[in-house]
Amino acid sequence: MAELSDNVRSKVEAPNLAFLADVMKDGSPHVSPVWIALENGYITFNTAAGRVKERNMRRDPRVAISIADKDNFYDKVDIRGRVVEMIEGEEADRQIDELAKKYLGKDEYPWRNPEETRIKVLVEPVAVAG
Amino acid sequence: MAELSDNVRSKVEAPNLAFLADVMKDGSPHVSPVWIALENGYITFNTAAGRVKERNMRRDPRVAISIADKDNFYDKVDIRGRVVEMIEGEEADRQIDELAKKYLGKDEYPWRNPEETRIKVLVEPVAVAG
Repeated sequence: MAELSDNVRSKVEAPNLAFLADVMKDGSPHVSPVWIALENGYITFNTAAGRVKERNMRRDPRVAISIADKDNFYDKVDIRGRVVEMIEGEEADRQIDELAKKYLGKDEYPWRNPEETRIKVLVEPVAVAG
Repeated sequence: MAELSDNVRSKVEAPNLAFLADVMKDGSPHVSPVWIALENGYITFNTAAGRVKERNMRRDPRVAISIADKDNFYDKVDIRGRVVEMIEGEEADRQIDELAKKYLGKDEYPWRNPEETRIKVLVEPVAVAG
């Protein structure tokens, strides 16, 4: 597991939108925005069962995560890692609310769909720059 | 070539930071921030010779581009496309200044390194959502 510098930690801990890249079945790239957090050295985010990224990560756990700011283009964070756990149930449901608090200042995720299975994803950082 | 909706066009034309995903030699994903623009229905951005993304796109032209805003998470743009041209020389040098104007309000790209070969990349949109 790669160590995270103070700069990387602070970028992940701040409510910066991150962009997650994963790989489609045909080997082409896929990228989508995610809310992220740090947990015991892992990068963590939340998705839902059936999403393109969820299917991609189950097939190939290799992901890349980028955080950058338009006004400070070169102060960016670049993480390459591997999905090590995908957790469903209470822990995943709790996390989406925690992320809504971090990113929206709301106690509950406002777009919660009870039909949807939320998934908490843990990524082990393998190589980190920034 | 996929048609771009008015919403997608306006997102690309505004100075929104975009995130470009491409694929490493080992098939793992790579993602990095880019300044983008529209040109005759193509998505275009600028890179430099020797960058990871440049080497990746020459090997495999399939890319994905995401634009999203932290405060408006679900109003996002998702473009999958194919690199159809990588142009060096005056046209690429001029483009990096045009992008600096768009994103920084500056007439010249402030980090220009004369040793560096700039490359203008044209992406044909294949599938677009948003």
